[in-house]
Amino acid sequence: MIKFSRVDFFPKRNELDINLIKNLILDIIVDINFKLNFMIEDISSLELIRDNSVIFTESILSLNHYNQENICLITSKEDVFKFYNDKYSIILVNDINKAYKIISNNLFFHDDDLEFYDEFKNINGSYISNYSEISDNVQIGKNCTIGRGVKISKGSIIKNNVVLKNCIISNNVTICDNTTIGSTGFGFDLKDMGSDNILPQIGIVYIDDNVHIGANCTIDRAKIDITYIGKNSMIDNLVHIAHNVYIGNNACIAAQSGISGSTKIGNNLIVGGQSGFAGHILIGDNVIVAAKSGVTKNINSNSTIAGFPAIDIKEWKKNIIRNKKNGH
Amino acid sequence: MIKFSRVDFFPKRNELDINLIKNLILDIIVDINFKLNFMIEDISSLELIRDNSVIFTESILSLNHYNQENICLITSKEDVFKFYNDKYSIILVNDINKAYKIISNNLFFHDDDLEFYDEFKNINGSYISNYSEISDNVQIGKNCTIGRGVKISKGSIIKNNVVLKNCIISNNVTICDNTTIGSTGFGFDLKDMGSDNILPQIGIVYIDDNVHIGANCTIDRAKIDITYIGKNSMIDNLVHIAHNVYIGNNACIAAQSGISGSTKIGNNLIVGGQSGFAGHILIGDNVIVAAKSGVTKNINSNSTIAGFPAIDIKEWKKNIIRNKKNGH
Amino acid sequence: MIKFSRVDFFPKRNELDINLIKNLILDIIVDINFKLNFMIEDISSLELIRDNSVIFTESILSLNHYNQENICLITSKEDVFKFYNDKYSIILVNDINKAYKIISNNLFFHDDDLEFYDEFKNINGSYISNYSEISDNVQIGKNCTIGRGVKISKGSIIKNNVVLKNCIISNNVTICDNTTIGSTGFGFDLKDMGSDNILPQIGIVYIDDNVHIGANCTIDRAKIDITYIGKNSMIDNLVHIAHNVYIGNNACIAAQSGISGSTKIGNNLIVGGQSGFAGHILIGDNVIVAAKSGVTKNINSNSTIAGFPAIDIKEWKKNIIRNKKNGH
Repeated sequence: MIKFSRVDFFPKRNELDINLIKNLILDIIVDINFKLNFMIEDISSLELIRDNSVIFTESILSLNHYNQENICLITSKEDVFKFYNDKYSIILVNDINKAYKIISNNLFFHDDDLEFYDEFKNINGSYISNYSEISDNVQIGKNCTIGRGVKISKGSIIKNNVVLKNCIISNNVTICDNTTIGSTGFGFDLKDMGSDNILPQIGIVYIDDNVHIGANCTIDRAKIDITYIGKNSMIDNLVHIAHNVYIGNNACIAAQSGISGSTKIGNNLIVGGQSGFAGHILIGDNVIVAAKSGVTKNINSNSTIAGFPAIDIKEWKKNIIRNKKNGH
Repeated sequence: MIKFSRVDFFPKRNELDINLIKNLILDIIVDINFKLNFMIEDISSLELIRDNSVIFTESILSLNHYNQENICLITSKEDVFKFYNDKYSIILVNDINKAYKIISNNLFFHDDDLEFYDEFKNINGSYISNYSEISDNVQIGKNCTIGRGVKISKGSIIKNNVVLKNCIISNNVTICDNTTIGSTGFGFDLKDMGSDNILPQIGIVYIDDNVHIGANCTIDRAKIDITYIGKNSMIDNLVHIAHNVYIGNNACIAAQSGISGSTKIGNNLIVGGQSGFAGHILIGDNVIVAAKSGVTKNINSNSTIAGFPAIDIKEWKKNIIRNKKNGH
Repeated sequence: MIKFSRVDFFPKRNELDINLIKNLILDIIVDINFKLNFMIEDISSLELIRDNSVIFTESILSLNHYNQENICLITSKEDVFKFYNDKYSIILVNDINKAYKIISNNLFFHDDDLEFYDEFKNINGSYISNYSEISDNVQIGKNCTIGRGVKISKGSIIKNNVVLKNCIISNNVTICDNTTIGSTGFGFDLKDMGSDNILPQIGIVYIDDNVHIGANCTIDRAKIDITYIGKNSMIDNLVHIAHNVYIGNNACIAAQSGISGSTKIGNNLIVGGQSGFAGHILIGDNVIVAAKSGVTKNINSNSTIAGFPAIDIKEWKKNIIRNKKNGH
């Protein structure tokens, strides 16, 4: 998991220690067990634990690899609370999404918040944040907006009317016109709708070396960590990649396909146009997905699938032939 | 039905009375019955009748609630002509779309017309029409274009490279990057193709309070009235909402879905990604539509549907299992 | 086939004669037969042969209509090499895509290349290339980017935040907001991924008279010749048209549909929303495609099709009814 400096993108709003955190969510706390007082600097996922952070979790996962005491777990599950009670500072709440929303909004500014602040110069026809870092050997077209914290490494070409924010663009990446990278992940609680209730998306997008991204695409930033596009991947036009998605190296994704949130994909993916992937599924290496497929579940490496729900392409073809026969 | 001032968006081209209207379409008139002469200020739908307006209708609908005589009906159906003959001024034509096109183009300027005129200032990196109204507490990013008549209420966040025109944005609305709101509805007569033959779209888009709209979406303005997105609705990236669509409160629409023209939807809709809705259908409250569905007909409240054509999700799942069995 | 001047869009990089061409690809040459030395000015397809050009071909097609000797064929097929050996200068290579990439990159600059150069003025809020030609009676909105070589004829309306490059826009064309025309075709060799390995796309887009193109669409430029949209065609929002596609007159394509590379379509096409077409297929005249269809093979004129894979709509409806019966 690539680690980035969150405050490069999301400026710190408040300095909070664990007791101030507690006070922020006091009315939704059910139980609490604090081991010691410490400063809360960040929010972590279980995949990448940062020191002095809050971790929101609803399941008991091994944290054996993490032995420091300066993390605070927050859960709404009593068994999780009991399990970790001895080892970490932990808070049991009755609404984990509300806790996440309050705490992350109090820690960081982000661009779904009226008070988020950035500062731009117009350089050769595009607005470039004073807080971005762009290598010398980079081409940027006209009418682009490049926000706070964005890094673009050498050899990359950003065409026209592109919006880049909350992202790191590696070497030799091409991003075509009217594409948006680093926009808000579509994460919220269905029981709590409305623009104010979007769960703060304080992760980023990481585009690795030699990736080509077509025109009018959207790649949303992760909630906490990164949305990742692996090296040498080729993405066509009007493709949507949701928050927290991980795509390995050498992916080829044809136009108008979409990958839902938190899906993780191995290397050498090939996807035909207008295909969709459900969220939170795992796709192995060397998977081929025919056009217009809907992938609804985990897929083993070296599979070729088609249809909706997507199945082995040979089965899919047999079904079509059988249906045709039945029709006569 | 929300009423707006059309001329805020679409400047008046000509002052026309009912006799001038008649002269404009003289070569397609079949019969005519004028009760009195009056000025024609506007065009109305049957849903929202404005004084001194022309109404185009092909069906006999109750206008009992409207008792004034300063409206003029236009129809190409003889029975409609006969039915209303006694009560209203009415014109029978042989091409109602042509009549609509000629009359609306003579009444109003709109942006599919070379002569449409707007006037902008560049304010902090975005072009803002001198004829728009933007509340103080609104955030607007870079490279946006905000056209004539647009109103944005307090607390709203317009990100970067967004195009807003012919729309009213209420309080606390978030609109993400590269989205287009208020573009031309896709309305025309198949027998009369070409850019000049788009039926003038002189309605607007109304986005109600606390709506979140993702990146690279398109929401087309209505033909005459409004395309409406209800309060607290959440719309993901690359979603298309066509002209005259009405979506109630608390809708959640996942990425790459599309809703065709004039479809009306109740409250609490949930739609999975890459779904589509046919035009001119009615969807009740609390409807859930699985991803990749194609909704082709009216759907009752409290339904959960899937597939294409979309059916009850339990039936859809049974079909899939049966197909699988047949394959072995 | 419409002929355009390639160097208007893609400036010449090097002056090369046939021997310099040979030297550029020396390490992949298997056999060679040169009839004479001449300058190489361009690259041709078999459909439109230009004097002093290189032609890449893997099949034996009649070139009888072309009798000059100043063309050079390149192939990786031995039978093609043998067949043309007597008549033309020809090179047998072991990797035709690599040969194409090297030669076209050495002949022309294009915008997937860091060294591509253009020069803009901001005119009324849009960046317009000094090397473009825009007729007087054209409306251009704000935040547009109009690149090198682009021609826009009279009566056309380019709305806001539109990117036009590598394209010719004829008379009375409307192009709506946030649309991208002339972006890079998605062409590359699956065994050779990465942004540097996109096959140079040195063709253009040609939009013929009276076409309406919606918002947030993408139309990719051709690899060598033109992507063509015929007169009076109406294209809705979020539509994707891939490289080398040819669409005849009077097409009507509803939102979120996509047409894959090199597919050729006759006149009077009607396509419902969210439909897709495979690449390299032929579609006749007067074809109607229902919404959400996936067209996978050639379609005869006067067909009405639906489903995926798309079949005659009557068959498709029968299948749905039969499936429904089986379910009970």
